[in-house]
Amino acid sequence: MKIISLAKSYGGTQGVYSHMSEACACEMTFAVFLPPQAEHGPRPVIWYLSGLTCTHANVMDKGEYRRMASELGLIIICPDTSPRGDEVPDETDNWQVGCGASFYIDATQPPYAKNYRMYSYLTEELPALVTAHFPTEMSRQSIFGHSMGGHGALTIALKNPSRFRSCSAFAPIVQPTTAGWSRPALEKYLGSNETAWRRYDACALIDDGCRFQEFLVDQGTSDRFLDEGLRPWLLGEACQKAGIPLLLRMHDGYDHSYNFISTFMDDHLEWHAQRLEEAAIFDRVAHPKEQVSC
Amino acid sequence: MKIISLAKSYGGTQGVYSHMSEACACEMTFAVFLPPQAEHGPRPVIWYLSGLTCTHANVMDKGEYRRMASELGLIIICPDTSPRGDEVPDETDNWQVGCGASFYIDATQPPYAKNYRMYSYLTEELPALVTAHFPTEMSRQSIFGHSMGGHGALTIALKNPSRFRSCSAFAPIVQPTTAGWSRPALEKYLGSNETAWRRYDACALIDDGCRFQEFLVDQGTSDRFLDEGLRPWLLGEACQKAGIPLLLRMHDGYDHSYNFISTFMDDHLEWHAQRLEEAAIFDRVAHPKEQVSC
Repeated sequence: MKIISLAKSYGGTQGVYSHMSEACACEMTFAVFLPPQAEHGPRPVIWYLSGLTCTHANVMDKGEYRRMASELGLIIICPDTSPRGDEVPDETDNWQVGCGASFYIDATQPPYAKNYRMYSYLTEELPALVTAHFPTEMSRQSIFGHSMGGHGALTIALKNPSRFRSCSAFAPIVQPTTAGWSRPALEKYLGSNETAWRRYDACALIDDGCRFQEFLVDQGTSDRFLDEGLRPWLLGEACQKAGIPLLLRMHDGYDHSYNFISTFMDDHLEWHAQRLEEAAIFDRVAHPKEQVSC
Repeated sequence: MKIISLAKSYGGTQGVYSHMSEACACEMTFAVFLPPQAEHGPRPVIWYLSGLTCTHANVMDKGEYRRMASELGLIIICPDTSPRGDEVPDETDNWQVGCGASFYIDATQPPYAKNYRMYSYLTEELPALVTAHFPTEMSRQSIFGHSMGGHGALTIALKNPSRFRSCSAFAPIVQPTTAGWSRPALEKYLGSNETAWRRYDACALIDDGCRFQEFLVDQGTSDRFLDEGLRPWLLGEACQKAGIPLLLRMHDGYDHSYNFISTFMDDHLEWHAQRLEEAAIFDRVAHPKEQVSC
């Protein structure tokens, strides 16, 4: 693992690192914020997954998470949104497929199958790497994200409910299998058999029996992607049918940008911290019996 | 005035605007954050001046000022750091002269004299423009900035003590007339007679009799520009000699970046707000008698 940069911030350390990823077969970059409390021992971890066109840097620069993370003693990990590099296939004229647009899947189709394995990267390789290098308390993890990263957070939590204490999202893509901006990518990464796509769709996963204890979703009403790309009410319907508590908050006048995300960042961090704190005190309630293998 | 973008953030509005500037003879861009309280009437104004290489956008993206500005009801105005455009003279291979490096002066030398009139722009044209377009309470203004912008804030406050209720800076350039990274610019903008440079040097202005009620300066000890470019102790000496209270805080391990600035942004906004609040309640104390025309 290489250190790209380190800077003191809010008493902690904002670092950027890179490493040769086996899962993605390329050099991958990620950001880690260590709160000041991490000097004295392991701290809980929150994963933040970013949206289309982003890298690890967008939320690091504009997400305004460090003040509250320092106060609460949370480690914040911000991975990149896709593999990158000269040898990584890309559609440079299409922001919805290729670099910056992995949709956090394990691709099965050429030419993407070799590198676009973000699901394995985020669920296996990167957790092992950060466990080895940082004072992480991996029994207390949460996950959240924005837009495509909200989709990533929801689907990864639904498929790994025992790993995460909580999951939330800002303006998530909740049903990529039916949205115009994600269907071309899913077809290129996973092939034309849409059954395979359902493993990367929060609503479909819930329909197929995956469960998570609860979700928090914030959504701006002036988000230009709301009606066609995001449609959080579809998650509402799926959660209601499945009995999953969903706190969906619509915020008047907010858009899809970090002006929106940063406004509600504190809320999300406090919400996760409360659940991570409970996790530290009590044994966790058993997962619902209907949990299937996702 | 043209609206470039508007986004709701922390209950207020982060806007970016442009206008044809008479002072700078080019189109100028600036950012204004209106807190939610501005819907109900005029609010105090804080000017933030950015450092070398920056535009209005750096602090808007990374400065983390909106949460506290919303809480305190402050309008934050972030001007650009220089004139820009195809017809504006620049040294594209030198980040210390030309675009992004105005040093907030009124240039007197060709080819810069036509456009590089940031001092007049910030003290006359832009205040008039924002007064006309935003609910500003111009009897309550403060100013702060970073690095070259800290220099801008200190020098503009010293020359206009009745306009500003308070002035602070992050890692300011306190004596540009003797620093290697500013002397070439001052010579190109103002000519080789160094007497003319003293009007744009905080320490020299104080030596020459300008006064301000007090300053707050934060500085990171791991700032790579500390010893050669910044040297806040020189401001300490000038202030001590002149009897100007200076609260200079050295912060262990912090660098020159927005990781440092954002960490102490809340402190600065609260410090200014306290002084703006006092200004609203009491008549202001008269300026020191030794105040000279600067």
